[in-house]
Amino acid sequence: MELNNEYGTPEDFRKAVVELRNALPAQNTVSTDSAVLKTHGDSRFDYHPESPPTVVAFPNSTEDVVAIVKIALKYKMPIIPYSGATSLEGNFRAPPIGGICVDLSRMNKILEIHEADSDVVCQPGVQWTHLNDALKEKGIRLFFPLDPGYGATIGGMISTGCSGTNAVCYGTAKGEWILNITVVLPNGQVMKTRQRSRKSSAGFDSTKLFIGAEGTLGIITEATLRLAPVLDTNVAVVSFPDARSASNAVIEVMNRGVGAQCIELVDDVFMHAVNASGLYEQKWPETDSLFIKFQGSTARAIQEGSDIAREVMTKHGAIAFELAKNEQEATDLWNIRKNALHAGLKLVPGARGWSTDVCVPVSRLPEIITETKKDIAKTTITSVVIGHAGDGNFHTLLLFRDDAELEVARQLADRMAERAIALEGTCTGEHGVGIGKRKYLKQELGEGTIDFMKTIKRAIDPLNLFNPGKASIQVIMLFD
Amino acid sequence: MELNNEYGTPEDFRKAVVELRNALPAQNTVSTDSAVLKTHGDSRFDYHPESPPTVVAFPNSTEDVVAIVKIALKYKMPIIPYSGATSLEGNFRAPPIGGICVDLSRMNKILEIHEADSDVVCQPGVQWTHLNDALKEKGIRLFFPLDPGYGATIGGMISTGCSGTNAVCYGTAKGEWILNITVVLPNGQVMKTRQRSRKSSAGFDSTKLFIGAEGTLGIITEATLRLAPVLDTNVAVVSFPDARSASNAVIEVMNRGVGAQCIELVDDVFMHAVNASGLYEQKWPETDSLFIKFQGSTARAIQEGSDIAREVMTKHGAIAFELAKNEQEATDLWNIRKNALHAGLKLVPGARGWSTDVCVPVSRLPEIITETKKDIAKTTITSVVIGHAGDGNFHTLLLFRDDAELEVARQLADRMAERAIALEGTCTGEHGVGIGKRKYLKQELGEGTIDFMKTIKRAIDPLNLFNPGKASIQVIMLFD
Repeated sequence: MELNNEYGTPEDFRKAVVELRNALPAQNTVSTDSAVLKTHGDSRFDYHPESPPTVVAFPNSTEDVVAIVKIALKYKMPIIPYSGATSLEGNFRAPPIGGICVDLSRMNKILEIHEADSDVVCQPGVQWTHLNDALKEKGIRLFFPLDPGYGATIGGMISTGCSGTNAVCYGTAKGEWILNITVVLPNGQVMKTRQRSRKSSAGFDSTKLFIGAEGTLGIITEATLRLAPVLDTNVAVVSFPDARSASNAVIEVMNRGVGAQCIELVDDVFMHAVNASGLYEQKWPETDSLFIKFQGSTARAIQEGSDIAREVMTKHGAIAFELAKNEQEATDLWNIRKNALHAGLKLVPGARGWSTDVCVPVSRLPEIITETKKDIAKTTITSVVIGHAGDGNFHTLLLFRDDAELEVARQLADRMAERAIALEGTCTGEHGVGIGKRKYLKQELGEGTIDFMKTIKRAIDPLNLFNPGKASIQVIMLFD
Repeated sequence: MELNNEYGTPEDFRKAVVELRNALPAQNTVSTDSAVLKTHGDSRFDYHPESPPTVVAFPNSTEDVVAIVKIALKYKMPIIPYSGATSLEGNFRAPPIGGICVDLSRMNKILEIHEADSDVVCQPGVQWTHLNDALKEKGIRLFFPLDPGYGATIGGMISTGCSGTNAVCYGTAKGEWILNITVVLPNGQVMKTRQRSRKSSAGFDSTKLFIGAEGTLGIITEATLRLAPVLDTNVAVVSFPDARSASNAVIEVMNRGVGAQCIELVDDVFMHAVNASGLYEQKWPETDSLFIKFQGSTARAIQEGSDIAREVMTKHGAIAFELAKNEQEATDLWNIRKNALHAGLKLVPGARGWSTDVCVPVSRLPEIITETKKDIAKTTITSVVIGHAGDGNFHTLLLFRDDAELEVARQLADRMAERAIALEGTCTGEHGVGIGKRKYLKQELGEGTIDFMKTIKRAIDPLNLFNPGKASIQVIMLFD
């Protein structure tokens, strides 16, 4: 079961670059500048090996992308989509043979806003934060609730199967937020997957196949997104003796139907990092804690939700429950969680951070956090734990100071992934597969599912041109 | 772009039946009894032409299904999955050449309940109502929120891409309720699509491809389902002068974040049917109305939600707002909506009902309902309108008395589908495609998407054995 991977020759690739320049003649639309190639083959956010493309093209439209794909087809040249470049698993690294990086960051227009239908149509290079800012500026009390890292764009978010802190309330990219997408397929054809209604049972939804596919099946050039109403919120920080009591409290709070937009678990090391950061006057207990964003239709509804949460959490052993007294306090408290990376990195002077995540059935979260922290404690690595507690999803930020510690961090991340899989979980809750998590997929999904995914990949991209070596199609790819 | 459809000969099919009996030797596990064949090739719920299979097999396990699929492969015999048989578009009719109907109704076990993780593992023949009853009996305050017609089973619900009255709050089968499935693929291999954690970004989720595929890509033999907490509810009936004011009120209530499990729109004819049914002592205004099920974490939260709804709805012109005063009243009011089919059918003595549904962006709902009612008024057909207003999804129950009126009903349903597609909607909101809605798909999805779906179908089921002529793969199928 091998995919064709007879790519073009270096001479073919040179011809392809010439044709790209002819097809996209505007200035700065096709680049082989070494600095541009380097940027597009590396990342500030991860420590996977860099691997630059042969050329970077900056399309402005679906038609431009079609032109690029046709050239890639003609010269059997790999093609790698790129936009926000915030992914963490090397998701946009070129294969060693090179290829065309398709940088979609100029396709960053919001095309239509349908307020009464709670949806928008936009291009893939739109950042989710910009989309939400634009809605706010227009006085529209709707927002797009998927909230991965700052700078992430819609195309990348769909392709990564992203989520974020809001997922406990709103679910992930794999839910019903992506109403349809326009995709340029590996054969150069353009497909709009479905219409704009919220629901449809008109066969299987082709959209879904592209969510989490990391560009291996096509390039998304437009998307219709469902929006959610903006509700009032308030924030609490709750300190617990350990992750287990915090997790149990979360399960009960959720089952009581408390309106919570986010329920974030952080560990004692994180709270120490916050206190030690010098960023805040206040000091918090340095124990496993929850940051909760309550939401509701009125202030009274939020108060009631937080009252229930306080009662449940006290029952589960909470040692402190601080609810913001006004909007400014709520923003300030939430910023502590939001600036996790910043505070975490300050913990070890000069350190860099390896960020990795896994997800398990929620009842197994305390167990895997405990085991992972024990494992980390055996090394010289310092790490903070940040989890989306309501989802069973957690991150470690493994702080390393040199190449030797980077290797230790890599091994810790490996064992974390294996532990998650053993607990009926996944090696990647929301960061995607890229080149970083490929090796776990067979173990996690089983040979049958991998074969099935390969069958799909082969049918849609028989030449294996689209982001080869990524996502789930790893076992037969260039990188291995 | 043709699928292979060289099926076996009648002699091949006879041999297949003999092999089926050998492979599944227990009594009453393989049947060619004419009454059994008739039941499995027709439906009490729709008026599409009947079309019985050659043989019906009743597997008890995934292994049984594998054995059946291998025999189908050997003799190139179509294979049609069947369980609750409540679908409305002929989704389980055999192709004219016949085939093996795989009746999964004996695979009706709940295998695992993970209360702390809010999920269950079950077989495809489990009815959603039985699942929820079983959870209730065990004192577990969790439920599976997808609620199509009574009698629907998990396998069929997944395969139809179902939803129901709860979709406005919980979304549809295409959301994140189906954590994983075990499928017997057309090549006889068994695949479990993914692990049990709530989230994963480990590549595209193969599960999604089977949601709405109507058995054309494989047979589901097990599923892990996410559950939601059971919350307290209350019910209101709100009378409006017309569907437009009701729809506008619904949009605003939803944007205010009111906790509503269901928001159902019914028309004046429905309310007349209720009053005329003799089933209820009370009489309601015979106008377009909403049935709302409020939910919340406490009685006060529900009261607050209903207060906001009352205020918003009054602003939008509601002429009556009746909130149940206790649990019994709430159950009674909700039963009026639940018994819609029953009350509707009583409206025209001796009539049968053709049930069809479409879905449009929510702001277009009043327009399409108005146009559809005008269209119906030009005929001798009586119809009630019942909509899931928050989703833009509505049903008509077209009451016909004879074959001539059946033909008129069919044409009304045709025009309703075309109208929905013209308004950026879908010909089928939640009933699936079956044989009834195939003809609209090219118009709705476009040639590119249909080609894409065919590519997938061909890759997974190259012999076109699995439920041929259904779902989205219609244009190249036997039935055309």
